[in-house]
Amino acid sequence: MQSPPIIPGFRFAGIACGIKASGAPDLGVIVADRPVTCAGRYTTNRVVAAPVVQSRARLAASAGRSRFVVVNSGNANACTGTQGAADAQRMADLTGDGALAQVCSTGVIGAPLPMAALEAGIPAAIAAARPDGVADFAEAIRTTDAFRKLRWTQVEVGERRFTVVGAAKGAGMIHPNMATMLGFVCTDAPLDAATLDALWGRICAVSFNAITVDGDTSTNDTALMLASGEGPSLAGDDLAQFEAAVTALTEQLAYDIVRDGEGGTKLVHITVSGAPDGAAAKQVAETIALSPLVKTAFHGEDPNWGRIIAAAGRSGVAVEPDRMRLSIGGHAILIEGVWQGTGAEAEAHAVMQGAEWTVELALGLGDACATVHTCDFGRDYIRINADYRS
Amino acid sequence: MQSPPIIPGFRFAGIACGIKASGAPDLGVIVADRPVTCAGRYTTNRVVAAPVVQSRARLAASAGRSRFVVVNSGNANACTGTQGAADAQRMADLTGDGALAQVCSTGVIGAPLPMAALEAGIPAAIAAARPDGVADFAEAIRTTDAFRKLRWTQVEVGERRFTVVGAAKGAGMIHPNMATMLGFVCTDAPLDAATLDALWGRICAVSFNAITVDGDTSTNDTALMLASGEGPSLAGDDLAQFEAAVTALTEQLAYDIVRDGEGGTKLVHITVSGAPDGAAAKQVAETIALSPLVKTAFHGEDPNWGRIIAAAGRSGVAVEPDRMRLSIGGHAILIEGVWQGTGAEAEAHAVMQGAEWTVELALGLGDACATVHTCDFGRDYIRINADYRS
Repeated sequence: MQSPPIIPGFRFAGIACGIKASGAPDLGVIVADRPVTCAGRYTTNRVVAAPVVQSRARLAASAGRSRFVVVNSGNANACTGTQGAADAQRMADLTGDGALAQVCSTGVIGAPLPMAALEAGIPAAIAAARPDGVADFAEAIRTTDAFRKLRWTQVEVGERRFTVVGAAKGAGMIHPNMATMLGFVCTDAPLDAATLDALWGRICAVSFNAITVDGDTSTNDTALMLASGEGPSLAGDDLAQFEAAVTALTEQLAYDIVRDGEGGTKLVHITVSGAPDGAAAKQVAETIALSPLVKTAFHGEDPNWGRIIAAAGRSGVAVEPDRMRLSIGGHAILIEGVWQGTGAEAEAHAVMQGAEWTVELALGLGDACATVHTCDFGRDYIRINADYRS
Repeated sequence: MQSPPIIPGFRFAGIACGIKASGAPDLGVIVADRPVTCAGRYTTNRVVAAPVVQSRARLAASAGRSRFVVVNSGNANACTGTQGAADAQRMADLTGDGALAQVCSTGVIGAPLPMAALEAGIPAAIAAARPDGVADFAEAIRTTDAFRKLRWTQVEVGERRFTVVGAAKGAGMIHPNMATMLGFVCTDAPLDAATLDALWGRICAVSFNAITVDGDTSTNDTALMLASGEGPSLAGDDLAQFEAAVTALTEQLAYDIVRDGEGGTKLVHITVSGAPDGAAAKQVAETIALSPLVKTAFHGEDPNWGRIIAAAGRSGVAVEPDRMRLSIGGHAILIEGVWQGTGAEAEAHAVMQGAEWTVELALGLGDACATVHTCDFGRDYIRINADYRS
C-alpha cells in the first residue's frame, strides 16, 4: 500500500494555523463521525501540562468515549499557570463538544498559547477533516522530528478485515525542551471501552513505554487509541490475533521515535531474561539502556561487556555475575560470567556495525524477562542539546 | 605549604613495577609503622572485583585495623574468576602481613594481573616507602586521570595540631571501562576504630558518595581512612572541629574527581531543599544531576529550567510544581512555580559562564535537604567513551 487506507468512521486534517513562525503545519485533528471508544495513557511526570490533566479527566468522565482529538505543535502549553488551563479548556470547547475532546499540545514551554490562531484554526481544521487526511495529520504534529511517523496495516482475521492506522511524534526525550512523545492509533474494530483500555495498556507497555533514549520524560506525553466499531465483530482468538497486529504496528511507531533520536545511529533491543520477576527484568534492562557509558560504547560499535554487566550490577537487582550469560547480536560474549575471548567480541562487533541489533542478558535467577528499546549516544547529542536555546 | 606535610606514623611510595606498558608509575603503597585504625567504604555494585571483596572482609575480621594499603593501576583484576581471587590474596600476602593489608586494583578489566611484576614490585615499594613519599603514591594510582589528586591540611584545635593528607584517583565514572574511584585519607589523630568508622561514613556520604558524573559505579570503588594515633588527644567539640576539617578536605578531593570528568567543563553543586525527607531530597538531586538533557544544558550555559523541573517531576518523589523555587547561581528563575522572566535567566546565564556554580531547588514540602556535585556533558564525552577500545 503506497498510501494509508481509509478507516471507516474517522476523518483527519493537518493545517497551518499560525502557531509556528515558519508557517509549517501546526494543528492536527482526528474527527470521529460519532462518539467512539477511546483509551489513553498519559505521562507519569509530576510536572504535567494542563491539556494532559484535562484530557485524562475527561476520558474518565466520559467512561472512555471521545469524538475529537486536537493536537497543536509549536507550543506545549506547559508551565503556563491558570491561563494555560483556561486555554486548554477553550481548545476542547472549540471542537463543539468539549466533553468528548482530547487535547494535546507539544512544543516550547512557558509561553502562552496564541489563542487567536487556535480560535480560527480548530473549527477550520475540523471542517477540513477528510477520510484520507491522516498523512496531513501526521505532518502537522511534528515539532523537530526528522521524519513523519505514520504506519498502517490491514488485519485479516478469517474472512474479516480490520484497518489500523497509527501516527506518532517525538524522538525519545532527546529533543530540546521536553519535546513530547505523542502516539495515536485508530481502528474500525468494535471494542468496548473496557476491552480497548486493557488492550491499549498491554500494547503501550511493550511499545511507547518500552522505549528510552535518555530517561527524560515529558510533561505532555500522551498515547491514545480510538475504535469506531464500524468493522465486523471481534472476540476470543480473533481478538488476540487483532491485538498482536496492533502491537506490532505500535512497536514500529515506537521504534520510529527511537530511530529519530537526534545524534543516535543505532536501534538496540535490550532483553533481560532469567530475572526473579518482571519488574526486576525491566529495571536491569532500563539501567543498561540508560547508561551513558553503554550508549557511547554502542555508538563506537564496541562490544564493551564490562560496561553492560557493571550497569546490571548497580541496577538495584541482586544479580550474580557468575550466572550471567551475555550475547550481542546473537554472539555469546560471557557464559556463566566467563569471558569468551576476542573471537566472540569480533563477531559481536561485526553485528554492531549494522543499524539495528540485540543485546541479551540472561541473569540465571528466575523466569521473567523484559525488553527495552533504545539508541546510542552519538556525537550530535551534545551539540544539539547544549546549543538549543543559545 | 608547597609540598604535603609528614604525617607521623605513615610512609608512602609510588613506583613503576611493569604493569603499564608505558613504564609509568603503577604501584603505590601506604605503610603504617605499626597497625593503625582504618575505616573503609566500598562499591555497592553487585559486580565487584576480588580485591574489594577480600579487603572488605579483612577489615571486618581485623575489627578496623590495617597496616598496609597496596594499590596497583593499569589492571583492575575484575571479572578474572578464581585466578583473580588468588592473585588479589597474593598481593596482600606480599606485604608480609596479609591480614592487615588493604588491596586496590584499577585499570582494564578481564585481563589477568601480571603477577611477576607484583611479586617483585610490592616488596620493593614497601622498602622504598618514605614519610615524604605521598606525592609519588598519588602519582602511581592514576590511570587516565588528567591530573594528580592530592590535598592536605593541618587542623589547629586549641594548641593541638593534626595533620591530614588525602589522595584520590578517578574521573567520576566517565573514564573508560569502569575506571575506579579510589580515595585515601591519612591522619595522625587518635581515633578508635568505631569512632573512625562512623566519622568516615559521614564524610563519604557528603563527598565521594555525593558526586556523580554519569551514574555508572565501578566494580572497584574504595575509600579508606587511616589514623595512626601519634598525634595529641581528641574528643568532644575538638573532634567535631577535626571532622569538619577532614570533611572539607575530602570534599575537595571529590570535587577534583568531578573536575576531571572527561569532556566536562563545569562543577555544579545541586542542592534540593524543602523535601519530605533526606532520601527524597537526594533522589531529586540525583535525578537532576544525571539527566543528560540537564547536563547538556549546563554545558551550553543555558538556564533551561524546564529540563530541571521535568527531571524533578520524574524523580519518583511527589513534587508539586506550584511550590517550587528554583535558583541558578543565586538568581531565582521560578518562584512558586512561576517563571521570573528573561531578565532572571540572563543573570543566571552570566553565572553559568563560570567554572563552578550552584543550582538550588526548594520543593516546599518539608525540611530535608541534600546536595549532589556533578559536571556537565561536554562534547568530548561521546568521543572519549565511544572510541576507547576501537
